[in-house]
Amino acid sequence: MYPANKYYVKGFVMSSYSERLNEYISMVNNELDRLLPEQRIPQQVVIDAMRYSLLSGGKRIRAVLVLEFCRMCGGDVAAALPIACAVEMLHCYSLIHDDLPCMDDDDLRRGRPSCHIAFGEANALLAGDGLLTLAFETILSSRNLAPEQIVKAAGVLSKAAGYQGMVGGQTVDLQNEGKPISGETLEYIHALKTGALIRAAVQMGCITAKADEGLCSGADEYAEKIGLSFQIIDDILDIVGFAQEMGKPVGSDRNNDKTTFATLYGVDKARQIVKTLNDEAKALLKRFPKANEFIYEFTDSLTSRTC
Amino acid sequence: MYPANKYYVKGFVMSSYSERLNEYISMVNNELDRLLPEQRIPQQVVIDAMRYSLLSGGKRIRAVLVLEFCRMCGGDVAAALPIACAVEMLHCYSLIHDDLPCMDDDDLRRGRPSCHIAFGEANALLAGDGLLTLAFETILSSRNLAPEQIVKAAGVLSKAAGYQGMVGGQTVDLQNEGKPISGETLEYIHALKTGALIRAAVQMGCITAKADEGLCSGADEYAEKIGLSFQIIDDILDIVGFAQEMGKPVGSDRNNDKTTFATLYGVDKARQIVKTLNDEAKALLKRFPKANEFIYEFTDSLTSRTC
Repeated sequence: MYPANKYYVKGFVMSSYSERLNEYISMVNNELDRLLPEQRIPQQVVIDAMRYSLLSGGKRIRAVLVLEFCRMCGGDVAAALPIACAVEMLHCYSLIHDDLPCMDDDDLRRGRPSCHIAFGEANALLAGDGLLTLAFETILSSRNLAPEQIVKAAGVLSKAAGYQGMVGGQTVDLQNEGKPISGETLEYIHALKTGALIRAAVQMGCITAKADEGLCSGADEYAEKIGLSFQIIDDILDIVGFAQEMGKPVGSDRNNDKTTFATLYGVDKARQIVKTLNDEAKALLKRFPKANEFIYEFTDSLTSRTC
Repeated sequence: MYPANKYYVKGFVMSSYSERLNEYISMVNNELDRLLPEQRIPQQVVIDAMRYSLLSGGKRIRAVLVLEFCRMCGGDVAAALPIACAVEMLHCYSLIHDDLPCMDDDDLRRGRPSCHIAFGEANALLAGDGLLTLAFETILSSRNLAPEQIVKAAGVLSKAAGYQGMVGGQTVDLQNEGKPISGETLEYIHALKTGALIRAAVQMGCITAKADEGLCSGADEYAEKIGLSFQIIDDILDIVGFAQEMGKPVGSDRNNDKTTFATLYGVDKARQIVKTLNDEAKALLKRFPKANEFIYEFTDSLTSRTC
């Protein structure tokens, strides 16, 4: 199913950072395309809507984290591929639903019309439901993992996605729209809305490699830090960034009087927090004997978006 | 976790049909209440919305099917309880999303304001997402099933829920709204929209009991027949029923010029089809040595709604 000679990433010494990154991204994109093929069935439109959003590029950060943490813990990257795809499906569903008129009402996503602009609200809602479900179907159909690993990984994903994770974060975010909020509430929102899935990605990578407790907890701390820094960078970019880079209208958060890390602490202080989190995250990587320059450079790349 | 002496249903001889039915329903309602407790967390509103819809009564037909097919295949009913709860969560999510303004735009559900009327559109959307996710989390957290059983059951549920099942059925249904459609298309819609989850419930009941292939296929055929008859009855009730019985405005399908089994075949012919399906379904139950009067009476009760 996943030809080892084609997909197995042999090690950083064999390829440059961007080669490795592109190899991971291609693996994921090819597999996503295979998992959700165009089909001539009456509900074709919902498949089109799912494919439109799922295969529209995206940096595949979460998938890369699954695959690289699997490798860093001594696992078989090919076996982790369904998990990497599932995490991208789940991320994509959340974007489709968040963009809907009754939620954040965003017309643009990754520089293109949002799913509901392209396919209508009902189809977009269903495409999101379909991707959330397909994420679980994909993990549960994994052929190269033991049932115990599948149950553990899918369980982690479900907790991260549900009302104690992403659904909860979006709920609190919407509740506080247009209100001034505390740093504590802001961190709570992002821990659930963005952080939970990034932590789940890294944890699932460890699970596919049957990593020990020490590695799992190190990975989790790493993910917590980059998850938060990732969101702070988004907030900074919303103030100083370019429409082209974000693929959505710049300043939209400010226009809604939304409290963000950048409005709360100011851009300079926010940048400093990002740097600290980045350094702490990289320090945690020392626990992984197989960590090589790829993951350090990848971690930096998440931060360099603010330049 | 599930005290056997309290919950295990010992057999029909010990209790009347309605006692057994109420015992099943209480098991499920108590467990649903336990699985989604009220909590003092910032996202309380989405938990309230989930509980509002999930614990609003409902006949728990799908949960009863899980539990009774588990018992009929020699399984431990208590071990099947998380699965029974998951199928009700999934059913509930589909109702919440189907009621949304961009979908069927129904203001009433089970005689009360729909979730989005009571909690607003955004919270209803999130409550649906939360319940869909919690359905998987619940199965994946099962303590009394082997990982192989959990993977199999959750896999069945994911297929039934996704674009090849419920999501697909709702897509085709919306696409054809206000258009005259063929009997074939109508059967396709209902097989996916209603039938898939009923079949999944019965299949999952068999999986929890590690039933053999013969029982599983008999159960699947049974579910296919009652799933279709169940939908035809809904269509008949939409013409002849009472608002009180349905808990939603009667004649809503007719007012939308919607093709249903009742408008397509006429009420009398539709009733005849229901009777045939019901007889065929009951004939299939003969394969189950442990089938007793409960399941026959339960099957009849699904049909008697047309009287």
